[in-house]
Amino acid sequence: MEASGPQLVIDVPAWVDAVTAAGASYATDEQKMALAIRLARENVHRGAGGPFGAAVFEIGSGRIVAAGVNSVVRRQNSVLHAEIVALMLAQQRVGSFTLRAPGQPAHELVTSCEPCAMCLGATLWSGVSRLVIAATREDAMAVGFEEGPVFPESYAYIAERGVTTVWGVGREEAASLLRGYRDGGGAIYNAVPPPGRAG
Amino acid sequence: MEASGPQLVIDVPAWVDAVTAAGASYATDEQKMALAIRLARENVHRGAGGPFGAAVFEIGSGRIVAAGVNSVVRRQNSVLHAEIVALMLAQQRVGSFTLRAPGQPAHELVTSCEPCAMCLGATLWSGVSRLVIAATREDAMAVGFEEGPVFPESYAYIAERGVTTVWGVGREEAASLLRGYRDGGGAIYNAVPPPGRAG
Repeated sequence: MEASGPQLVIDVPAWVDAVTAAGASYATDEQKMALAIRLARENVHRGAGGPFGAAVFEIGSGRIVAAGVNSVVRRQNSVLHAEIVALMLAQQRVGSFTLRAPGQPAHELVTSCEPCAMCLGATLWSGVSRLVIAATREDAMAVGFEEGPVFPESYAYIAERGVTTVWGVGREEAASLLRGYRDGGGAIYNAVPPPGRAG
Repeated sequence: MEASGPQLVIDVPAWVDAVTAAGASYATDEQKMALAIRLARENVHRGAGGPFGAAVFEIGSGRIVAAGVNSVVRRQNSVLHAEIVALMLAQQRVGSFTLRAPGQPAHELVTSCEPCAMCLGATLWSGVSRLVIAATREDAMAVGFEEGPVFPESYAYIAERGVTTVWGVGREEAASLLRGYRDGGGAIYNAVPPPGRAG
């Protein structure tokens, strides 16, 4: 279909491909999470964005399908959390708006920090069957990041629809990265300040 | 920053610009919603996607900043709900990851259907101050669309952070459009079937 004037481009920085070693396989949750956390760390160290990384894998083979890093400030776009970038690129690679398309292997999203409300919704729509989380909502909020309206029943809701959540893989390392980012003066780029904080 | 191999392009179909009459001002909620619903209707009639339209306006002037239509199937990307497209294009136009950037007028998101969990989170992160909704979650689910983990406390959460929600503007027309879409055999493109439904 013909495109109109306004367009925008979503991408990841060039170094992400080198970090992820396209086509590589990752056998365990710990190995997959080490990659997500490394993406988060590199994103900070290279001045590319916030301390968040994520990747989509085929569950059976462990093959990486796509990786994402937080790109909110780099692209001036509040939608571009690491999970959103990874999910969109994974769907583009697979060529379907659902990673549960017929003939597809099952997929999982591995993220260095618990998804915010937006990303948890996107996880459900993406068609992944499994969600692996390192740092928690509390870890993120402790350094000043907002997480949005997510409740315990949110996880029950996605579980009922076939998305299994796995917690605590690499949490300490990921939470430490968040604290280091704050302590290093990293920007806390909420669009809206939390209640009770000065804007 | 240098971009790497994987990129994707977000856009709206060419006819959206003609429908929105770029730079036009809309005085009332009803006029703004009539545009959002017209976008949804045109999206269906032109075979471009699902029955959902949205637009971002400056609250004070009523000037339209950006418009979006559901582009999930067209772009094979489950993130591209109408609200997400409108918010991303609005931020690109404003040049900031928050529509509450210093010196910016207040903005609002007007959508033909209640935002799903992903889009409600995105609404909060976008920096809009006001959310205007036509068809409800129940209207959407009645024709088979999933809406994700949104609860009454989700709206309390965003209200505490300065996002006012206005309900029921154009609801009947928007809900009728949803029913007409279903009755016309329009695709209900959930990535994951709701519990209890055949996949």
